[in-house]
Amino acid sequence: MGPHPAVADVRRAVREALAGVEEGALVLAACSGGADSLALSAALAFVAPRMGLRAGALTVDHGLQPGSAGRAATVAEVVRGLGLDPVEVLTVTVGTAGGPEAAARDARYAALAEAADRLEAQAVLLGHTRDDQAETVLLGLARGSGPRSLSGMAARSGRYLRPLLGLPRATTVAACRALRLPPWDDPHNEDPRFTRVRVRRHVLPVLEKELGPGVAEALARTAGMAREDADALDGWAESAYRNCALSDIEGSVTLSVDELETLPDAVRRRVLRRAAIAAGAPPGALSAAHVLAVDRLVTRWHGQKAVDLPGGLSAVRRYGTLILAISPIP
Amino acid sequence: MGPHPAVADVRRAVREALAGVEEGALVLAACSGGADSLALSAALAFVAPRMGLRAGALTVDHGLQPGSAGRAATVAEVVRGLGLDPVEVLTVTVGTAGGPEAAARDARYAALAEAADRLEAQAVLLGHTRDDQAETVLLGLARGSGPRSLSGMAARSGRYLRPLLGLPRATTVAACRALRLPPWDDPHNEDPRFTRVRVRRHVLPVLEKELGPGVAEALARTAGMAREDADALDGWAESAYRNCALSDIEGSVTLSVDELETLPDAVRRRVLRRAAIAAGAPPGALSAAHVLAVDRLVTRWHGQKAVDLPGGLSAVRRYGTLILAISPIP
Repeated sequence: MGPHPAVADVRRAVREALAGVEEGALVLAACSGGADSLALSAALAFVAPRMGLRAGALTVDHGLQPGSAGRAATVAEVVRGLGLDPVEVLTVTVGTAGGPEAAARDARYAALAEAADRLEAQAVLLGHTRDDQAETVLLGLARGSGPRSLSGMAARSGRYLRPLLGLPRATTVAACRALRLPPWDDPHNEDPRFTRVRVRRHVLPVLEKELGPGVAEALARTAGMAREDADALDGWAESAYRNCALSDIEGSVTLSVDELETLPDAVRRRVLRRAAIAAGAPPGALSAAHVLAVDRLVTRWHGQKAVDLPGGLSAVRRYGTLILAISPIP
Repeated sequence: MGPHPAVADVRRAVREALAGVEEGALVLAACSGGADSLALSAALAFVAPRMGLRAGALTVDHGLQPGSAGRAATVAEVVRGLGLDPVEVLTVTVGTAGGPEAAARDARYAALAEAADRLEAQAVLLGHTRDDQAETVLLGLARGSGPRSLSGMAARSGRYLRPLLGLPRATTVAACRALRLPPWDDPHNEDPRFTRVRVRRHVLPVLEKELGPGVAEALARTAGMAREDADALDGWAESAYRNCALSDIEGSVTLSVDELETLPDAVRRRVLRRAAIAAGAPPGALSAAHVLAVDRLVTRWHGQKAVDLPGGLSAVRRYGTLILAISPIP
């Protein structure tokens, strides 16, 4: 008798994600003890030795709840029991920058990166599922910051792999049940102060009810296509930028208006954004409205004056060139 | 004293949309009698003569509700009272193809197109607002058919113009109130059998509540960016297709695998879709899964057999070429 279908699905997903990892390498699962990362850890423990890989796990103690250290120790014990080795508890101090979710995430990723470096791991596996991806797409949609923010999480980003992005959360829950692994339900996952929690508990259920049960899958599929599109356009914009840039030094970038005019809107605006950043504008402070104002110097030219940009920059049009530089531009 | 701010907003939007229309031309508003199209009609009646344009209106009697003919006659009378001329009631027969919403829309657009041709109108103005756009994006998202389906409705598509896509529905309601025009609330707009109605009444309010009040605006902004991206990528795919196509006749298209391999995923898949349609596959029947299966002949080649496509086509890889043709391919 083979494994439970849910267990088989998670194992297959992990096996496919690890296809490119060289034999003998160490691969780590990041495990919170929740159903997703617990099912992931169990699958890694099963799959890795059969692929000639070493497999360990990391669990992070965020120190945000009473008893979190004991909790992390228990998770470490459970995943050791699965055969993973090394297993480490990483204790972090969560700051406040960017809000509680972002601060916890930043601290967690910093600790994972440090441990992966120290242990010389080739890959760190994260347990995000298709439902997490759907939530991420909705959060990006609500920001309205465009297709890149709809592309959700990458299945592969540097050493981080997300093997379960194609599987629903129900599969990891079923896999844990079949393996008699008791998942830990993090109370933070139910705390309505977190936008993601409200999306999970209130928004997605309403979408499923009103639009049909395939919504999470549709959102995840949209993410994949949006990511491909954004990658292709970013690549195009990169080469278009090199064609347009007449000079390009920190603090001053000059672009050819003739070249800019040959580009479609989506590419030209990416080139302008890229140029502003190359000239020294802080990416986080550069809004779509800034880029549009610079774009009007190209597409709706009627002798406008300089456009102010973050980082003390200005954009001006002169004699068929667009100059983005520290203001005032002489 | 100037006009009410909402009235001014609608007029400004209509004026900007009509900027390119040649003097003396006839422009028509499509008016259901609802707040959106009534505010649009009033703005057109005000703006058009000041721009040297003639302005009329069309109202469609779908014949779906008792008293609909009388209702349409009343709407026609109201917009005639605004000074629009000619004003016509178009009586249509709604079929059943594609469901009730799609059938009504098809009948409506066919009647509008016929009347616009007959009256030699240069443009037909439609009253869709930013809220309609947000609903359209959510409906596209739920389909999961990718960035094109997120791009919502175009501000300009052939002779159809949608001047109000940047304005919230609240502005048209306020404009009607300020002008003492009583809008007609179509009971279909409250009928929960229609997916769009459920999106408006249940999904968007929950999104606004859980994610913040700017959601409709964020969705509309996403639509605009998704449309630009999709346009740029379609343009790229069109020129890439011409580079890749070694031969291209109805019933048989041959592509160079070497050329296909140079393209980013998002462009290559568009080229393959384009090729399948050029070879004769019915666009509506060609799914993303079909295109992915053909794509694997390029990117994951291990001697697969032919991939079946709709319309009696197959795709095979042979000697560095990809052939999409009526099967069996000799």
